[in-house]
Amino acid sequence: METGDSTPAPKARRRRTRRSLKQGKRSEISAATRIDILKSASAAFRKLGYHGATVEQIAAALQMNKGNLYYYFKNKEEILFACHEYSHDRLQELLDETVRSTASAEAKLRRLINAWVHVILDELHGTALFLDLEALSPAHLKTVIVRRDQFDRGVRQVLQEGMASGAFASADPKFLAFALLGAVNWIPRWFNPNGPSTSDDIADRFADYLIAGLRRG
Amino acid sequence: METGDSTPAPKARRRRTRRSLKQGKRSEISAATRIDILKSASAAFRKLGYHGATVEQIAAALQMNKGNLYYYFKNKEEILFACHEYSHDRLQELLDETVRSTASAEAKLRRLINAWVHVILDELHGTALFLDLEALSPAHLKTVIVRRDQFDRGVRQVLQEGMASGAFASADPKFLAFALLGAVNWIPRWFNPNGPSTSDDIADRFADYLIAGLRRG
Repeated sequence: METGDSTPAPKARRRRTRRSLKQGKRSEISAATRIDILKSASAAFRKLGYHGATVEQIAAALQMNKGNLYYYFKNKEEILFACHEYSHDRLQELLDETVRSTASAEAKLRRLINAWVHVILDELHGTALFLDLEALSPAHLKTVIVRRDQFDRGVRQVLQEGMASGAFASADPKFLAFALLGAVNWIPRWFNPNGPSTSDDIADRFADYLIAGLRRG
Repeated sequence: METGDSTPAPKARRRRTRRSLKQGKRSEISAATRIDILKSASAAFRKLGYHGATVEQIAAALQMNKGNLYYYFKNKEEILFACHEYSHDRLQELLDETVRSTASAEAKLRRLINAWVHVILDELHGTALFLDLEALSPAHLKTVIVRRDQFDRGVRQVLQEGMASGAFASADPKFLAFALLGAVNWIPRWFNPNGPSTSDDIADRFADYLIAGLRRG
């Protein structure tokens, strides 16, 4: 409850502002470190598998000691869950933007596929979407599945819009969304970061093919 | 070296024939048991993850004891490798048949997608194609990658045929094959064996969509 009594005196308020600015700065650094840890972890998971990679290796790649890493994450499973959360945050953000826009369903889908390939290849190497889900604790698994289903539904919604406008042929959007999801989520399995194809090439070609199959014949 | 001396006397030969008939029967039973083990293992891997499933659980589901299972497979990694080998045997067989046939590229691809969905869903629950490859020993991993690449190349060949005949639009068959592979190999991630869709439904719808995107616009 907000009352006059709770308003701080000017000096105390200034002190509080300074403190919260400092805290803001600190929490920014902390957030950046967390993301660095997720990137290091997902690279290690990709290379050695979730079970093969150790917290020591994840920390060592960042010239950090294990104890310091434990300040940010309690254990390896928490890092894995945070990777999932991070990817889903990015995907959800991009889905919300896409759904809100006034572009055609085809343009929306192209943008979605494009951004999604970039999240997968350039941010967390696809790990979070790809790794053995059964390594997650039951509570974390439940959260991840809810968020994955949200994303599935968003993709279906864009497909349905395209069908309603007549741009896409009528079909079951559930299967189409699964086929799209699979094609894109599988990319980390064959992508070679040292190969000739950039994530832009892949995003464009995948969007071309996956959208062509939706149009009215 | 084959010499006259090595020809067995008639009685010995009969005995040998009887023995090899018996051995043939025995090796048939042994092969069937091996496949039962692979099926039990892939169901357990699917449910609990490769690292989560134990050899005891795989044996118990077959009312077999662990010691008996070790007669067939030295350890869990060998079972995993055998799952991969089994799926690749089936896929290679079906690819060879498809490539040899005189059907159109579109008909070949439809057949390939169809049979492939069935191998994934009805035979080994997709495990072998899907599981963390890094759980394999380096030598086994190498073998699996060679075989996977063979299958990729076969799919590309069918795509190229279709482009050459003018049925499919010109595009890079490598990316198209990866998109196809991903869409199909991802199926075990969302398929619910107790859900309303049969493997036939999924195979037909996936083939419709994945082929529609290849046709000349």
